[in-house]
Order: sequence, then C-alpha cells, then structure tokens
Amino acid sequence: MHVMATPLDFLRRAEVIHADRTAVIDGDRRFSYAEFADRCRRAGGLLEAHGVRPGDRVATLSRNTVMMLEAHYAVPGLGAVLVPINHRLTPGEIGQIVSHAGAGLVLFDDDFADVVKQIGVPGISQSDYERALPTAASAMRAVADEHDLLSINYTSGTTGLPKGVMYEHRGAYFQALAMVAHSRLTVGSRFLWTLPMFHCNGWTYPWAVTAAGGTHVCLDVVDPQRIWQLIGEVGVSHLNAAPTVLITLVGHESARPVDSVEPLRVATGGAPPSPTLLAQLADLNIDVTHLYGLTETYGPAAVCDWHPEWSALPVAEQARLKARQGNANILGGQVRVLGPDGSDVPADGSTVGEVCLRGNNVMRGYFRDPEATSQAIRDGWFHSGDLGVMHPDGYLELKDRSKDVIISGGENIASIEVEQALAAHPAVREAAVVAMAHEHWGEVPAAFVVAQTGVPVDESTLRDFVRGRIAGFKVPKRFVFVDELPKTATGKIQKFVLRSQV
Amino acid sequence: MHVMATPLDFLRRAEVIHADRTAVIDGDRRFSYAEFADRCRRAGGLLEAHGVRPGDRVATLSRNTVMMLEAHYAVPGLGAVLVPINHRLTPGEIGQIVSHAGAGLVLFDDDFADVVKQIGVPGISQSDYERALPTAASAMRAVADEHDLLSINYTSGTTGLPKGVMYEHRGAYFQALAMVAHSRLTVGSRFLWTLPMFHCNGWTYPWAVTAAGGTHVCLDVVDPQRIWQLIGEVGVSHLNAAPTVLITLVGHESARPVDSVEPLRVATGGAPPSPTLLAQLADLNIDVTHLYGLTETYGPAAVCDWHPEWSALPVAEQARLKARQGNANILGGQVRVLGPDGSDVPADGSTVGEVCLRGNNVMRGYFRDPEATSQAIRDGWFHSGDLGVMHPDGYLELKDRSKDVIISGGENIASIEVEQALAAHPAVREAAVVAMAHEHWGEVPAAFVVAQTGVPVDESTLRDFVRGRIAGFKVPKRFVFVDELPKTATGKIQKFVLRSQV
Repeated sequence: MHVMATPLDFLRRAEVIHADRTAVIDGDRRFSYAEFADRCRRAGGLLEAHGVRPGDRVATLSRNTVMMLEAHYAVPGLGAVLVPINHRLTPGEIGQIVSHAGAGLVLFDDDFADVVKQIGVPGISQSDYERALPTAASAMRAVADEHDLLSINYTSGTTGLPKGVMYEHRGAYFQALAMVAHSRLTVGSRFLWTLPMFHCNGWTYPWAVTAAGGTHVCLDVVDPQRIWQLIGEVGVSHLNAAPTVLITLVGHESARPVDSVEPLRVATGGAPPSPTLLAQLADLNIDVTHLYGLTETYGPAAVCDWHPEWSALPVAEQARLKARQGNANILGGQVRVLGPDGSDVPADGSTVGEVCLRGNNVMRGYFRDPEATSQAIRDGWFHSGDLGVMHPDGYLELKDRSKDVIISGGENIASIEVEQALAAHPAVREAAVVAMAHEHWGEVPAAFVVAQTGVPVDESTLRDFVRGRIAGFKVPKRFVFVDELPKTATGKIQKFVLRSQV
Repeated sequence: MHVMATPLDFLRRAEVIHADRTAVIDGDRRFSYAEFADRCRRAGGLLEAHGVRPGDRVATLSRNTVMMLEAHYAVPGLGAVLVPINHRLTPGEIGQIVSHAGAGLVLFDDDFADVVKQIGVPGISQSDYERALPTAASAMRAVADEHDLLSINYTSGTTGLPKGVMYEHRGAYFQALAMVAHSRLTVGSRFLWTLPMFHCNGWTYPWAVTAAGGTHVCLDVVDPQRIWQLIGEVGVSHLNAAPTVLITLVGHESARPVDSVEPLRVATGGAPPSPTLLAQLADLNIDVTHLYGLTETYGPAAVCDWHPEWSALPVAEQARLKARQGNANILGGQVRVLGPDGSDVPADGSTVGEVCLRGNNVMRGYFRDPEATSQAIRDGWFHSGDLGVMHPDGYLELKDRSKDVIISGGENIASIEVEQALAAHPAVREAAVVAMAHEHWGEVPAAFVVAQTGVPVDESTLRDFVRGRIAGFKVPKRFVFVDELPKTATGKIQKFVLRSQV
C-alpha cells in the first residue's frame, strides 16, 4: 500500500500511543504528546488565520523553544514550507533570506521584534503566539505528495549569498528514521536541544525524537552549567553538539559522571573529536558517535559506525578510528571519494578526492537557483566540495573543506591534519589552522591555539611536538595563542575570521 | 533526491562499511559481509544462468540457511520475485502454491528433493547451489521501481487455498528500518534465526539485521538445547519467536540467565506472553517486546511500546500491559478498531471491533486474486479479520481471530481471554480454548491444557481457579489434559485440529 512518507505521521502516532507521556519540556512547562499535538494543530490554525496557504513560506527567527518545535509540524501541516533562519545573522542577512525565500510571515522570539520590524515582514511574536494558541482553530492536513517541499534551510556560507537548501517530506522522514536507529532513540529517551533547530532542521531530530516517543528538552542558550543541571535533573539521555561545545562541557566545573545505566549518547559532527576529548567524555559516561553531513544532506548522511571490538583498543587508537566520518548511514545511500577524473580514488587512506553523496537524504536542490543546483548535483551525485580520503575498510576521513586547504609550495596541506596533531598535545584545548600568505611558499600554515586553563605552553614546545607527527612543511610557521576561537552559531570555527588576522 | 527505496541497498552499505565483519554464521561456516555480498551476487548469476528473468517467480523450500538468506538478495537483485514456501506443508499444498505463483524454479534443501520431483518443477538443491556458487558469474541489478514486486508470501490459512501476499521493495525497506528501531539492532547484534524466514520473509529481518550491520545466526531446527548452546557460544543478542517457543526455551534444563550487559532481546507475537512466562524470562535476563501483525502487513505492523515506568509495576500488572498489541510501529502507519458501521469503536477497552490497518507496510494485494484483495483492502484500509478492543491509552488488545470466537447463548466469548485466565495458574504451561457444540447454548468453551512437568493439577482445581477470574459462561465446560498442543511451523496453535477433537 502506498502511503505518503511524511514526518508528520510520527506526531499522529505519538499522540495515539504516547498521549500522556511528556513530549516537550521547555523551562518550567511540560507538554504531553496529547497537548503537543493539539498545540501543533492550533498553531496551524493560527498560521492559517494569518493567511498562510499551501506552498507559502513561513520563516522562523527563534531559539530552541516549544514554538520552534511546533513550527516543524504546524507549517508543513498546512502544506506550507518552513524557513528556519539563524537568528545570529545580521538584520541585513536575515532580510536577504526572507526576501529570497519569499516568506510572507515570520515566527519570532520576542527579543527579535526590532529585527523583524526592520526587515518589514509580518510576524507573530512568541508572546502573541502563546496568547493566541488556546483559542485558535485546529488545522493540519494530509500531505498531498511525499515529494512536496517541507523546509528551506539557508546555508550559513562564509562568502557569497546563502543558498536555500530544499528538503522534502520524504527525505526528512527517511533521515529521521536513520537518526532514531543510530542514536538508539526510544520511548524513555530525553533529548536535549543543544543543536540549533534552525541548523538543517536540527538534523531532523524534531521528528526523530517524536517518532521514538521520546521527550524534547528545549534549551534556549548553550550554557554548560544549565546543560549539566538538566542532565542531572531531567535525566537527559541524548544530545547533539559540535566538539567545541563538548570541550566546553567537559571542562566545566559542574562536570560529573552521568548517573545512568546506559551512557549519555552524544552525536557530534563538524570536526573530529580529539583523543583528549574522547577520554574525558568516556570518564563522564558519555558515548560519542561521529557523524558527517551538510545542510544539503539533511544533516548526518554518514556515520562512523562503531565496531564493538574497537572499544578495547588504546584510547589514542580509538580516537584515530573515531576521527573518521564513516560511510553512508543506515538508509543505505552512497558516499564516494572522487578524483579529478570522476572515478573513485583508491581506498588507501591517503589519496585525496572530493566527497560525493547520493541518497534519499540528499536535497532536492537550491531554491530558485537552478545554476547552483546543477553545479552541485551532477550525474545523480551531490558534490560536497569537501575533501577526504577513503580508508581500506570503507571509512571516509575528511581532509578538509576545499577552501580550507593550504597550498604550500604546490603541496596541499589539510588544515585538519595539522589541527589533529596539535590537539593531541595535552596542553591544547582547541586549535585551528589556516593559510597565511608567504613570499616563498605561496601559503604556509598558521595556528590559533586555545590552551587548557592553567597549563603553561609555548610556541617552541608545540612546534617540537607536532614536528614529530607531521611532515616539516605542514608544521605551522606561526602560533597565535587566544582565549577563544570565533565560531558560528552551530559551533563551526569561522576560519575566514582567522585568515583575516594573519 | 529520489533514490529507489529497496532493502537491497542495506547489503551494499554493509559490504562497504562492514566488509570484514561476520554477516552470517551457519553451523561451522562463517561469512563476512564481503563474502556474503559476493555470494549473493553469484547466486544471482546462478539463477540467471538457470533462466531467471525480471518478474519471474523463484520459490524456496528451505530452512533458515545461508542459502535462504541469500535468496532474499539474489532473487530481487535480478528483478525477480521470491516465493518462500513453508516446507512443512504437504507436497500437494506446495505444488498448489508453486503452480499458483507460476514459479519456474525452486531452491531447496537436499532432503526436499523428493517433494520437488513430485511437483515437477525445475530446482537447485542446496548441494548443487554450494557447488556452483564459487564459479558462478555475478549478477545484481539496480531496482527499477521501489513499487516493484519483491516477494509473494503465501498465508498458511487453516481453511481454503492459501493466498499469495504481495510485498514490494518499498514496503520491505520501511518495515526493516522499523524493526531495526524497535529491536534496537546495531553493529554488534547477533540475531538468531528461530523465526522461519519463509514466514513473512522472517518479518523482514533478513534485511533489517543486514541494515544494522549485525550478524545472522542461522538455525535449521528450533531445538531448545541448540538455542541455549548458541546463546552461550555465539553471544546471541536477539531472537524472534512465538510464546510457545519461549515456553519450551525457559522450561529447558539448559536454561541459564543470559550473561550480557544488555538483555537478550526477544520479539514475540501470535499470542500474548503469560505472566508466568514473563517472570521466567526476566529471571533469565531476557527482555520481551510484544508485536502484532499478519502476513498481509510484512509481519509486525504494531508494537506494544513499553513505557519504562511500567517496569516498576508488579509482574502481573506488567503482564496485563504487555499482553496488549500496542499500536502502529514507528513508521507511523495507523491501527484502528472498527465497529460494524465502519467507525471507530469507543476506546474503552471492552467494545470489540475489527482491527484495520493502513501504512506502507500493508501488502499491495493478493497475487492473482483481485476479488480477495478488494475484500481485504477497502477504502484504503486493510481489514484484518482479527477482533480487538482499543484501550483508553491507545493500546490495541486482540480479543480473537474472528473464527476463534465462541458464541455461547448469543454471547461472544474471546477464547484468548479464557486462555489467559488459565495460563495465570502456576500449574498451567499452555492452554488453548476452542468452541464445542452444545445442545442448549449452541457453543461452549472447551480447554486443552498442557500442565507444567511434575506439577499435579486437575479439572476441578482449574475450574475453581478461572471461575473467580472470568464470567461463569466463559468457564470451559470441558478440560482435556494433553502433552502437547498441535502447532503450525511458526508456532501458532492449530485450533482447527482441536475443534475436530471435541
């Protein structure tokens, strides 16, 4: 029997079978699945009353709140399209996205009222939303086609205009099921919203957690003290975060081993977790899965599937294995590393090529940008622009985003390799390596280092340390010690900021 | 991006990311995923050399062997259709199925050679298959359409001709992902093949275990001693079986608590597990999930999602909750209980109606039987013929297969209710209740009881025991003590045999 594949069905199921269980914890408020589903339908009614019709785009400018979660059901429940916007962007950037998406309405947190006014688009503030919900009519319709547009996620490109990545109901449904399987989400799960929902629709977890009948634990600010508090009080079982967030977490004074039979399951991406970090996490009863993906792939299209036997290896070896991005997730899509001639590079762990992906969790294309779409998706493969190698055991390892490669004397240096070498030093908390112009070599690596609190370290120590680990031409020619690295809202290091400093 | 949804992709992924891990253990033989995938392709080549073309039906008459597993990839890998036949049927019945399916070739275990000869269809014996495989060419093609026919599963109806239930690639793909999630299959899982693969394609586990990168542990005969041996030696983490098989298992002299951190996960269906059985299983570190489905729904379409809090309740209360069939599995399909007027019965836990289902895991229809198909699937709903009630918390509880209802003095008696009352007595190992003709009441219940070994029990004790638990008119009017109940190959009690005895 053909029934449309849509993540909205997860909510209907949860409302039937888990009506009384807690769907959402948002501060002091708790909503059962019966209440949450009712609120989602009323949110649909509210949007409809504001003129939203099938195909319309509805933007959000919101933190990880219950309203933001509900938007993931209410907007597509009208056949409309969700446009979640990174609220840390400038009003100018936000205005560009709203305009490009043609969004006629924006749901926003109260403190963004000025921004919304500035860009001149009608909106509903969170206070108004909450006030209107109890008396709003209910509206949620069956999905007409599983290939209907569900969401447009604008990529926070570091240069140029952001591109609007189009997600369909079918792709989000598939990806959410994959996330349930890999994260082992289940009825008792309590998922903490450290990952912003505006980022790739929170890797489809707004639907995945509901599919499993778990509880969404909202979080408006990524504050380590608050996170540790929630882990203890609410019994958080799952969270997703970039390694930089995890570093802050393990280094915080409130850090205590998680008191539960099953470990706290964390999925991470964006950068590989260092050996030091992995050891610290293990001591805290936190289990990490390394994932890889892009906005264009509904978030994690690849997963570093962990072989149980690996857990018996020395921690440095475990870190080496876990630093890899693995291969296609359980959906059975495909991940390949292609050379310049378009054929697979040898799976030798050293030949670098471009990471290309294929599967139901690859975007439909870029909204209103057929040119960029046909550049990105060629011959049925999405070309990520990321560089990587394929190991003999079928595990991908990213070497760098193309633009982060340092070309020194004609040789490519993967900044990630230099960063990993630095991160292996116990005094290094975090490191970022970028290209610095050089008269003779064209470019050379420059390192920005955040030292562990209270651990003295200097340039010559680090230089000697990495010299034994990587080739001489890859050793940074300059070291800058900083208190913090500049990061995007999702925890990615903003290398363009660093590049401008050297 | 639209990519065809097919369970064959799970094998391709496993071959890439888990090439060296053990895919299959079959007796003394072990095959890695690289070897298993290679064998599946060669099996495809072998079948092609025997003339199999897209759309052709290929039957199997095989136990749970590596050949049977491979057939689940090799046959659909040619675009052909798998027809797994229950090898316990009579040659006449097998011939009927082969003929109705139009199967031109049968893969069979050597000891079924006479049956195959008798029905006069060309075949490949397991020995020939193993001999030919190493030199066979490779053949496995991309799936043309996710709605293509994958398998035809003939239902072992107790009366009339068996019907051929049509499975598609898409439905099997979805259902396999659901089974991964509910069984919590993962890379380290070792799944023991106690459930026959010829039954609903083994509830799609031939694909689900591969999707997770787990290990298939083949089992040719359901022998409790052998099962306990494998649990100990191989480290079985999962198995699926009817309660009757579990009863044999817990009662066996080799029974020992499973020595692992996570419990042995068992999925069961066909009949609800009794309180006694659940307590025994818990003592053995075995966790049971109760599922419900039919051949028409790719196996388990419903699952009794367990609320973690329920584990703190008294065991009798847990059994009462676990005896229920739950609601639609994680795919988000729908399960309803409909009254004679076609509307939902009240969710009061007592009003009986027909269980109807909808979702991507409902069959396409019956092969070459449009009449039966349009009777079964009406207005987009599959009418199961099973009777049940809906509890206020959204959990379905089966009351009886329609034909198993006993109509006594105009009142319906659900035989399952009487059986549960009997099973609560510690001396009762298993019980089956059927209708017995009666001059005055039309029908009355008759009970067939298997007593626990060495525990004396008599008719009057049991009669008094159930009288306090169920209404007087439901108390069996006749008790027959037997050593064993007649069962189908999948462990279902053959009530028609019992009915013929009273």
